[in-house]
Amino acid sequence: MLMKDIIRKKREGQSLSSEEIRFWIRGVVDGSIPDYQSSALLMAIFFRGMQVPERRELTLAMRDSGKPLQLSHFQRFVIDKHSSGGIGDKTSIILAPWLASCGALVPMISGRGLGFTGGTLDKLESIPGFSVELSRDSSLKALQEHGFFFAGQSEEIAPADKKLYALRDVTETVEEISLITASILSKKLSEDLNGLVLDIKCGTGAFMKTQSEAEELAYSLVETAKAAGVACRALITRMDFPLGKMVGNLCEIYEALEFMKPDSRYFHLFQQKWKSHLAKTQPVLQINSVEDNLILVTTALACEMLSLSHGLNRNDALNLLESKWASGELLEHFYRAVRFQGGDLEKLSASLQEMHELYETAVEFVSPQEGYLVSCHGQLLGELLVRLGAGRRVAKDTIEPLVGMEMLACEGKKLAKGEPICRIYKPGMSREESALCENFLGKAFVLGPEPPIWQDYIIKTVA
Amino acid sequence: MLMKDIIRKKREGQSLSSEEIRFWIRGVVDGSIPDYQSSALLMAIFFRGMQVPERRELTLAMRDSGKPLQLSHFQRFVIDKHSSGGIGDKTSIILAPWLASCGALVPMISGRGLGFTGGTLDKLESIPGFSVELSRDSSLKALQEHGFFFAGQSEEIAPADKKLYALRDVTETVEEISLITASILSKKLSEDLNGLVLDIKCGTGAFMKTQSEAEELAYSLVETAKAAGVACRALITRMDFPLGKMVGNLCEIYEALEFMKPDSRYFHLFQQKWKSHLAKTQPVLQINSVEDNLILVTTALACEMLSLSHGLNRNDALNLLESKWASGELLEHFYRAVRFQGGDLEKLSASLQEMHELYETAVEFVSPQEGYLVSCHGQLLGELLVRLGAGRRVAKDTIEPLVGMEMLACEGKKLAKGEPICRIYKPGMSREESALCENFLGKAFVLGPEPPIWQDYIIKTVA
Repeated sequence: MLMKDIIRKKREGQSLSSEEIRFWIRGVVDGSIPDYQSSALLMAIFFRGMQVPERRELTLAMRDSGKPLQLSHFQRFVIDKHSSGGIGDKTSIILAPWLASCGALVPMISGRGLGFTGGTLDKLESIPGFSVELSRDSSLKALQEHGFFFAGQSEEIAPADKKLYALRDVTETVEEISLITASILSKKLSEDLNGLVLDIKCGTGAFMKTQSEAEELAYSLVETAKAAGVACRALITRMDFPLGKMVGNLCEIYEALEFMKPDSRYFHLFQQKWKSHLAKTQPVLQINSVEDNLILVTTALACEMLSLSHGLNRNDALNLLESKWASGELLEHFYRAVRFQGGDLEKLSASLQEMHELYETAVEFVSPQEGYLVSCHGQLLGELLVRLGAGRRVAKDTIEPLVGMEMLACEGKKLAKGEPICRIYKPGMSREESALCENFLGKAFVLGPEPPIWQDYIIKTVA
Repeated sequence: MLMKDIIRKKREGQSLSSEEIRFWIRGVVDGSIPDYQSSALLMAIFFRGMQVPERRELTLAMRDSGKPLQLSHFQRFVIDKHSSGGIGDKTSIILAPWLASCGALVPMISGRGLGFTGGTLDKLESIPGFSVELSRDSSLKALQEHGFFFAGQSEEIAPADKKLYALRDVTETVEEISLITASILSKKLSEDLNGLVLDIKCGTGAFMKTQSEAEELAYSLVETAKAAGVACRALITRMDFPLGKMVGNLCEIYEALEFMKPDSRYFHLFQQKWKSHLAKTQPVLQINSVEDNLILVTTALACEMLSLSHGLNRNDALNLLESKWASGELLEHFYRAVRFQGGDLEKLSASLQEMHELYETAVEFVSPQEGYLVSCHGQLLGELLVRLGAGRRVAKDTIEPLVGMEMLACEGKKLAKGEPICRIYKPGMSREESALCENFLGKAFVLGPEPPIWQDYIIKTVA
């Protein structure tokens, strides 16, 4: 088999066989195929695309380039969630212990912040002592003992993806649907999943700005995962305003903890409002607090996961989730993982106390006029926080865990002139940084004379 | 300037600027741009193409990657001919001394055999002692003393083309019109040409099998050369049967010498038949000897070259060519070059004598039935001769100069059963090789019950 022939076949728009795709990926990993041939094939794929069977083979070949987890001996349903990335998205931190508390296995391998979005690993590392580097043995022990773990991608997980991604990045072949699909799924399928729920975000705070782009990715991921034997559903969710009230690292851990508490404001809003909405007994509801969209999206994703793992209908799923929340089992599962992975809960408590005091001193951004908060340019918020130190601009940057934003007004709220919209905290903020905040926030939040036309946060389900 | 941005721009179908193209080619040569980025750009060019201004810039950037000849101080018109490659094409060997004998400068830098076609350098090297490796000083001296030289491509001629061609070869990006155009013209324009005549061959013995492919290349080359300030014309010529009666290396030198003799059969056929045809005083003529198509194509190309270099009309050009032929100046110019480049005319004469005796012993391929010789699959003839040692299958193969074919029947001839069509000579031909000849020749020559419908060898002129 010659790489030249494989390039020509794709260049001519033909489908590649399983053998051809595996020959390529083996050669990428063992170095027998030079990068200049891989990049030519990547560009040919950019123009010609790949059919679902090719996407499946590419996914599996990339998965098998490493050492996938082997979890079938647990004889439990293995499930995970993947998000395409947004602003203030701490749902993974809540969903993993929640599903584990319900009896599923959740081997959650996550990523770092990418571009203007935050990363689950970075957020978890703001917990003093918490390590996301788990050995294979520790990962299995965590699953055995409390049903889930949070970890980064080790060298054993789909090394072909790492190599190819680096090559795609420098050859302008990143934005191609089959390559994106295989990159995401090769890592997720390395978790030996039975089921996968996808949160494909769409809007100003997401990588996909339009619904059609989000749908294309959602359908590709769902079809390819299914073709690879994994039950899969995707929710296309709206991402313009931040999800929840906090955006940052430590402050998102704070919000996730607040969410998980049995008697929290989040729990009560769920019981009073969102549970019946999700059970389809109430029509679309407008949000009226900064916590609402986080509750809605998190519980909708949890329902989809439970539907796959337990075969439960919506009502039964909501009841099971509510009971694990109300009993404290959700929070307790999270605490167990934190302790197992080296996190110091006392120090975390002290850090959060300090954070609250510091956030009280943060300068507020206020409404420059009277009006309704009609829209938000989420990417600008993300970019501002990255510049202030909540994310990385280059790989060697370190993250300042305390940097963050707190939303003080929710989407659609009617604001008087001078009423606060949000506050930004950064230790020792400079005058230039203050000016940067004013500039970015002035562009990010849009006020209008009329309330916005409401659009549900769950735009579509792809199954 | 970032290579990534250049790749993206072409990927999106935009035109690259002169600065961007020169940045790329500089980086290819100095190694600052890695091959994997060049190959991604090559594949993007394969799908998106290049406009004529981009083709011009790529040609000039590749030319300037080396040390082009500087010939303006000669204050003479500098002209060359380029052929897209065929079977039995020895026109370059005749045209260079002919144009030089008329007063033009012809710095003829040629190539080796490629695929199933022969190469001018390989043919010339069958002259004992002849060297195609000329220093820059010797090249200039040859031009000064007798107006032309024959040479291979030194390291100083368009090194970017050499690097890029090697990369295109392994990334399946060879067959793209703008890349082909720039590859051909960057080398030719390194000769500091004022004019260029192209022989774009079309048919079963050419790389371009259809007229539309040949026209696409011809228009691209002519437009790009003109955009780069070089007067240019292309003839699209038919290439199914071999050009002339000999195909090989030494035997093509023999035929070229026979052609150039003042009193040769070729000269008389020219005077009796082809001169008036080319002067447009006689309509399309059918060939009826194996020498006819070589005379027609060579003199047509010579007319185009003289038209560019001397501004002569067709009649005046034909008269000047005839006078240099009849006076022996054409042949004398060729002999001068042979001596200047180390060729031993006495040994050549002995080699040709030996060749004749050996060819007399060659096995003839005869017509298996009665009929008209209606068509020929030229590529099969070329492939057969390469297999017998007249060309290279891999770069390190050596060429056997004596291997060759002599046509004994011309296109359209009515043949009795058992009448000879051609003979193939190879020293010590094995039984397997004999069988190979029977097999290839049986497929290459097609007999029919009716004479073929005649088509002129000069299909079209692109100016």
